[in-house]
Amino acid sequence: MILVKVYVTLKDSVVDVQGEAVKDAIHSMNYKDVLDVRIGKYFEIKFDDRSNNLKSEIDSICDDLLANPNIESYRYEIVEAN
Amino acid sequence: MILVKVYVTLKDSVVDVQGEAVKDAIHSMNYKDVLDVRIGKYFEIKFDDRSNNLKSEIDSICDDLLANPNIESYRYEIVEAN
Repeated sequence: MILVKVYVTLKDSVVDVQGEAVKDAIHSMNYKDVLDVRIGKYFEIKFDDRSNNLKSEIDSICDDLLANPNIESYRYEIVEAN
Repeated sequence: MILVKVYVTLKDSVVDVQGEAVKDAIHSMNYKDVLDVRIGKYFEIKFDDRSNNLKSEIDSICDDLLANPNIESYRYEIVEAN
């Protein structure tokens, strides 16, 4: 079994409205030293050991399903796990 | 400026309905070698350099705002960044 960790985040050019709301909430908790908050999605995907074209498969899954290419970018880590 | 990366995920005991839906969608893309999908939230929080009680502050922010302690757990990485 292969564990892949995928991080999908808004592109820097995109205003993170949710992040702004969380930042305001944090400030209302009196933690004024928080300068910025960006929020993304985090996926842990388990693959069968025998998948042969793993990287291209992950890219297709991210491009076609997990990330919106207009406003989001993704990166991933392949973590061997058995 | 200090960058903190926070990962909020469902506890293992909690069924990840969204994850199941994404797994089904991936299977419908003919990637049958995907065994499991778990979805979480990912936060990038920037702190001012002068924050003194950083770890306890992050724990409070996670416990009180970012994670639901009943069904979620969190971990974080402190990444120095200037």
